[in-house]
Amino acid sequence: MENTVLDRDALIDEALEKILDYLDKKQYFKARDVLKEFNAADIADIMEDVNDEVDIHMTVILFRLLPKDLAVDVFSYMSPEDQVNIVNAITDKEISFIVQELDFDDKIDILEELPATVVSKILAKTPKEERSMINEFLNYPADSAGSLMTPEYISLRQDWTVGESLKRIKEGGRDAETIYTCYVKDAGRRLIGIVSLSTLVTTDSDVLIRDIMHTDYVYVHVLDDQEDVAEVFKKYDYMALPVVDSEHRIVGIITFDDIIDVIEEEATEDIERMNGVIDFKDNDRSYLDIPVWQHAVNRLPWLLILMVAYVFTGMIVTRFESSLSKVIQLVTYMPMLMGTGGNTGSQAATLIIRGLATGEVETDDWLKVMWKELRIGLIIGVILSLVNFVRVCWLDGGGVKIALTVCMAMLAIVIFAKLIGSMIPLIVKKVNLDPALIANPAISSVSDAVALTIYFAMASIFLSAELA
Amino acid sequence: MENTVLDRDALIDEALEKILDYLDKKQYFKARDVLKEFNAADIADIMEDVNDEVDIHMTVILFRLLPKDLAVDVFSYMSPEDQVNIVNAITDKEISFIVQELDFDDKIDILEELPATVVSKILAKTPKEERSMINEFLNYPADSAGSLMTPEYISLRQDWTVGESLKRIKEGGRDAETIYTCYVKDAGRRLIGIVSLSTLVTTDSDVLIRDIMHTDYVYVHVLDDQEDVAEVFKKYDYMALPVVDSEHRIVGIITFDDIIDVIEEEATEDIERMNGVIDFKDNDRSYLDIPVWQHAVNRLPWLLILMVAYVFTGMIVTRFESSLSKVIQLVTYMPMLMGTGGNTGSQAATLIIRGLATGEVETDDWLKVMWKELRIGLIIGVILSLVNFVRVCWLDGGGVKIALTVCMAMLAIVIFAKLIGSMIPLIVKKVNLDPALIANPAISSVSDAVALTIYFAMASIFLSAELA
Repeated sequence: MENTVLDRDALIDEALEKILDYLDKKQYFKARDVLKEFNAADIADIMEDVNDEVDIHMTVILFRLLPKDLAVDVFSYMSPEDQVNIVNAITDKEISFIVQELDFDDKIDILEELPATVVSKILAKTPKEERSMINEFLNYPADSAGSLMTPEYISLRQDWTVGESLKRIKEGGRDAETIYTCYVKDAGRRLIGIVSLSTLVTTDSDVLIRDIMHTDYVYVHVLDDQEDVAEVFKKYDYMALPVVDSEHRIVGIITFDDIIDVIEEEATEDIERMNGVIDFKDNDRSYLDIPVWQHAVNRLPWLLILMVAYVFTGMIVTRFESSLSKVIQLVTYMPMLMGTGGNTGSQAATLIIRGLATGEVETDDWLKVMWKELRIGLIIGVILSLVNFVRVCWLDGGGVKIALTVCMAMLAIVIFAKLIGSMIPLIVKKVNLDPALIANPAISSVSDAVALTIYFAMASIFLSAELA
Repeated sequence: MENTVLDRDALIDEALEKILDYLDKKQYFKARDVLKEFNAADIADIMEDVNDEVDIHMTVILFRLLPKDLAVDVFSYMSPEDQVNIVNAITDKEISFIVQELDFDDKIDILEELPATVVSKILAKTPKEERSMINEFLNYPADSAGSLMTPEYISLRQDWTVGESLKRIKEGGRDAETIYTCYVKDAGRRLIGIVSLSTLVTTDSDVLIRDIMHTDYVYVHVLDDQEDVAEVFKKYDYMALPVVDSEHRIVGIITFDDIIDVIEEEATEDIERMNGVIDFKDNDRSYLDIPVWQHAVNRLPWLLILMVAYVFTGMIVTRFESSLSKVIQLVTYMPMLMGTGGNTGSQAATLIIRGLATGEVETDDWLKVMWKELRIGLIIGVILSLVNFVRVCWLDGGGVKIALTVCMAMLAIVIFAKLIGSMIPLIVKKVNLDPALIANPAISSVSDAVALTIYFAMASIFLSAELA
């Protein structure tokens, strides 16, 4: 009982074994009965495992044996690949039922993922009116508020009473994605206020909606970026937000569960970009589902840009070649100095990029950031220099001149790298580009060149006699 | 109207200016009236700006002029620093009121952040019974489900009717963090089922709770890790989860808004760790609030570990020193080869580490991952080799032998780096360590050593005559 998440995983594993056993003996209904004990998200997981362990035919058989309503829920939790497999395997009538029953925003998500042929197959089964609404929703830009919203919400009138409103919710509520926040519209479909269900059930039934609705509600625009919408959710802790068009007509609502996915997607995108991976297709497919060539395409641009940068690094080394061949020992410390410069720069960049993303740091703070990183760089630089003095003199027996060269270079490189690493993201942000996308290649190439230049400059100072 | 988030920011900026103007003229009530038009989260933002622009005294004056209930809400949205300032400036009676009125989980969060002196000041004002509950909650480990939960939830009995339940919710609901999910307990406080408010309001009032409650609800244990709890929320899309103790007694609930913070915190932690920053104090303070020495302490360990690794890299270079001095040109390409190895390895590592964090990749997938990265490495390696052949031969005029050395080394380094970068996180995960914490230092040091070894081996093959 110590870890309930693991508990549940164990339970699911156990069920999976039983089901595989029943399927093996062709006792399909018994397998179905084991499955039915779980909720839709778990069943989707188990079916995916059945798919891996046996095959898609078995998954389809199990899927068809589920009670119809449960099957729809399970479908909405499946991975896009499994959904396509199911759609390809079941009859048009079954497809039609699933599509009708899905929550509207799940329907849109699924249609966005499925191949065009399957989408037209599904749309053909959809009533004309809904089809045009689906098409409208499919047309919102992929990262906009419009692409996240559902049109299934509860709307009230300001001259209704609480009792009347509750009665209407009771009648019509089953189709709404959430009934916990209700939206008050005027005759022109314009949003004029919101009322929470908790207010409704704790207020006397003859009170008018007008007298209890909040008019200072927060809303988003249908074309707002999903990242901005996520910021609003994080700031205000709302369960749902209304989405309005340019005439302030409510066109849908966004619920918190979709925002949890957005926050995770955005974090993944930032992490990948910060480490030189750009997802050009910008899709939800997982690492294992993205084909090899697409992985290569996502990773090549950054590596190629750096190739250009390395031409400059190479030129710096070439200019110093004759000196290096005189004191070849200097080459030994090149990897360490460049590596430390890159790492310490990327530490600073990471904190600033993340700080910009979560709103902890703003571009106006640049002076504060610079002053902070200068002092941090000084502390770290002094400590690393001392460590290296010991190493070069005692461990490598390199002599005081070499040691001084390496240590002074280390100190200067760390301080410069901290400043470069912290300032570049702020500059990139200031010119309205994504710091996660640009900062790291820029920092890597600049910090390598700076590190070598500093190192060779120090060598010229401390080893002038040897290099002459 | 294109971007409502910016709209709102503009509105807030405008209000801030007006308020600063009124404060300047000592028209405090007018300033308060402007402030009152916003909701608590916005007011907390504006007060922080007032703090920056004027001083804390002015913020305290404004805070005291707010209606008491609003002041409590605003307080819960303030940053820990501002909260401490407010607590230090207001009277004990005011502190007592704020603490009494705060939601329980906000109260715990705030008490965890405040200095011990302030906490004891606050606890002294708390009724004895609640004080012991606060102490119990403060004792849950920082990253556990217990530290996120609130004891304020609605509990029902299975033999109540829907009508009776709604009546009780109406009477007692105001103190609950959420009334949207209600928890059914038996006589021994054990959790036996859940009912949503939406079921209650859409069900006839004489139906018994026992007949509509769900018994296959998902719950978490009070000592579960917050990251696991976040996984459960992501999987099931629930708004709230019950937290039980080892005897299955319900001790609190966790709501989705706290989980949004956890997901963001965990992403930040992963991003920082992947880039060599370890937050030893593991606190919520922002970049600018963390003192310089703490920043240095957080960044030093990784850099020091790499120092040890660079001793080995240095040894590899030293062993090859005499050959290098014969063909000093080889030094020119060292930064590029090591840099590309590190970058391409960290691309692979990033995708695997993130995949492990979001559950897209599992350690059992290692063979699939290896096969995938082998092919990706081959594609990228061949392309980068060709680019470099052109560069070395034409741009640098380096001769075919040098070009072959560099290109073959590049191909081998990219493939090895992809394999090392993808396998190390899986191995680290397999032995139950955090891949984000260990993988990058390990990859950096191994890939540098591998890159140099491969490069010098290629040189020995293609330049054997020159190096003899």
